[in-house]
Amino acid sequence: MNPILEIFSQGEEVVTGQTVDTNAAWLSEQVVNMGFTVTRHTAVGDKLDDLTALLREISVRADCCICTGGLGPTSDDLTAEAVAKAFGLPLEFDEVAFEQIQRFFARRNRVMPESNRKQAMFPKGAERIDNAWGTAPGFSLRAGRCWFAFVPGVPSEMRHLFLESIGPTLASRFLLRPDKLITIRTFGLGESAIQQRISAIEIPAQVQLGFRASSDDVQTKLLFPHDYPEAALTALVGKVAAELGDNVFAIDGLGQTSGDLVFTVDQLMTTGKHTMAVVETASQGLLAAKCIGKDWLLETRYEQSLERLCQKLGVTVNINDLPATAQAIAGEIHKTGTADFVLIQLYSGDKQAFHDKELAINLHNTLLTKDGFFQAAGSVAGPIERKQNQAALLALDFLRRYLQQKEL
Amino acid sequence: MNPILEIFSQGEEVVTGQTVDTNAAWLSEQVVNMGFTVTRHTAVGDKLDDLTALLREISVRADCCICTGGLGPTSDDLTAEAVAKAFGLPLEFDEVAFEQIQRFFARRNRVMPESNRKQAMFPKGAERIDNAWGTAPGFSLRAGRCWFAFVPGVPSEMRHLFLESIGPTLASRFLLRPDKLITIRTFGLGESAIQQRISAIEIPAQVQLGFRASSDDVQTKLLFPHDYPEAALTALVGKVAAELGDNVFAIDGLGQTSGDLVFTVDQLMTTGKHTMAVVETASQGLLAAKCIGKDWLLETRYEQSLERLCQKLGVTVNINDLPATAQAIAGEIHKTGTADFVLIQLYSGDKQAFHDKELAINLHNTLLTKDGFFQAAGSVAGPIERKQNQAALLALDFLRRYLQQKEL
Repeated sequence: MNPILEIFSQGEEVVTGQTVDTNAAWLSEQVVNMGFTVTRHTAVGDKLDDLTALLREISVRADCCICTGGLGPTSDDLTAEAVAKAFGLPLEFDEVAFEQIQRFFARRNRVMPESNRKQAMFPKGAERIDNAWGTAPGFSLRAGRCWFAFVPGVPSEMRHLFLESIGPTLASRFLLRPDKLITIRTFGLGESAIQQRISAIEIPAQVQLGFRASSDDVQTKLLFPHDYPEAALTALVGKVAAELGDNVFAIDGLGQTSGDLVFTVDQLMTTGKHTMAVVETASQGLLAAKCIGKDWLLETRYEQSLERLCQKLGVTVNINDLPATAQAIAGEIHKTGTADFVLIQLYSGDKQAFHDKELAINLHNTLLTKDGFFQAAGSVAGPIERKQNQAALLALDFLRRYLQQKEL
Repeated sequence: MNPILEIFSQGEEVVTGQTVDTNAAWLSEQVVNMGFTVTRHTAVGDKLDDLTALLREISVRADCCICTGGLGPTSDDLTAEAVAKAFGLPLEFDEVAFEQIQRFFARRNRVMPESNRKQAMFPKGAERIDNAWGTAPGFSLRAGRCWFAFVPGVPSEMRHLFLESIGPTLASRFLLRPDKLITIRTFGLGESAIQQRISAIEIPAQVQLGFRASSDDVQTKLLFPHDYPEAALTALVGKVAAELGDNVFAIDGLGQTSGDLVFTVDQLMTTGKHTMAVVETASQGLLAAKCIGKDWLLETRYEQSLERLCQKLGVTVNINDLPATAQAIAGEIHKTGTADFVLIQLYSGDKQAFHDKELAINLHNTLLTKDGFFQAAGSVAGPIERKQNQAALLALDFLRRYLQQKEL
């Protein structure tokens, strides 16, 4: 039997629907992968009685509970107080936590408001969880049957604290036999297209198949029991990946470090010692923004008017021949710059089509490398933010395919 | 006192984190606006005992509960069975529901699998909720203190059923007096700094004060009872906004359309008929990306090396005097372009400081308009993505302040 874990989210913004509780899903996925069985998620608002009642319920029902939110400095942040009340523990001042909070403000040249002192008060017996990413330290505590960990609700801080502190602690505190999760990440195929492609593959009953579509990729998930034979696992993953072909940009869970599309592109560009200059239109800066801090991205430019960009570069624009225009722009940028790759991301379709979620635009990507010009086109519909995001991803995926010598 | 409502989501995909429960937030927002107080969200998996225990808990705790999921045809869809068991009611076959399910398949020229018959079985005393958007009808039922509505978990079906059936039913069943929510949006002040600034203002006990910090702004929320006098509401909101001063960029709930910082900047730029060219460094394209589809943004460029950018523009770079360098760049871009505003977003601090979450970088914004040069500096620490985002926002907020003639 796996140990039972519950997720508890605190905040009026969650129960009133101002915030979608993405923390609960993210944490659940992490702990399920570790070998816990998650039985409940509960969210309550900033009311002391609701909080204490829930803490007591969970303390007799679960082996472990991760609680997010309610650790801030303001009067509606009640977690520590609720824990103290629920389990009859006095609140105690933690000198080290207080110093950390003060340092957080000092590093930013800001004066610590008096209200932040509250964040250094923990229930007696609690262990502090240091937080290098925000002002609020977390804490952990055993009560009844349950080991509780309390962390801030800000997603970035919560994730850091889980990955660097709570996760490792859980692994040492509990006897876990995790199932093995393999995630095949693709770009360019929808969920139903993937399902159709792999429909002929026989998936054994003890292997769970699932899908997850996000704005940046579609993930095909295979969950294997902890004692599933290694060779059979590798063979099945290989079969599925083969059906998805060149759309696969990463496979998580097979031992190599992997990540999102930018991660894959970054590895390829760094390994190949390439540098790149970009021109963006539909993505309007988002391609460069996604590559934050990557040394190989030397420059990007966005110009609303393609005519003006061409004029500045001294290139002839032909609005009816975007591939030729893109080649001319790429050639000019290559000549005057130092990057060995030039990527031009253009689109055709009028302004109305770009803004209207019912209409599609056509995307044209052109890549200039030492091997010459490479081009590919695609089309995207939906809200303007989706078009922007897909334009950035399609261009990056085009680059990935070139670097991996896949079909463009 | 508002009636108490709880949200209950059923599904293994929710508790295991495969699916983010967006239904709960959407439903909560709807019912809070109608005048309910939402006290809890709970999600449980497809286990009969967990489901019956939760149903019984809620039946003594809440006046109303909306439950999503578990109405499908498969063996793990247990809602009707759990309701029957929890409240000692036999399951009864509903002829009309069965005909609807058969019609759904007939219209799609598909044969109804035998398993779908189960979806026409409801606990005795339940009222059917017709579903024109999928196979599974919902149902409602009073048990103990609570009126329950059970609907499918597919978001599109759930939303239709709520808007067209459950919402109107709730409005007629409950005496509702919705509260009035005012949200004051600020940039540049932390949650605790805000609390300190407004600490001298006396907030009447019947007004709820709350805060919500996201990566893009901090929201100060004032929730007024439905019968709070209009003049007193306006006066209190005015007092709070005055303490937050020039950091306030929008106030939601007072009748005018409002939105995020980009929305405010967009309105100001459009009203003033301005256009703008941007140079980004730390934000690396994100400033432009946030302004997707805004006509007044004519161009952005990002160049990793400030030296190379200056070289291309024929401008002398002085790394020790960023304000002077920014002025020179802005002047050159203004001369050769058509935009009436030029915004230069630079930062000082070496590459290591940019990447290291423990270190801060200094941001320098320069705006050139017909009134001359305006400059402001700030500092930001944290992970590189946070520095990038803050750099983009700080530059946009600087522009907003100039346009609103606030302190820069």
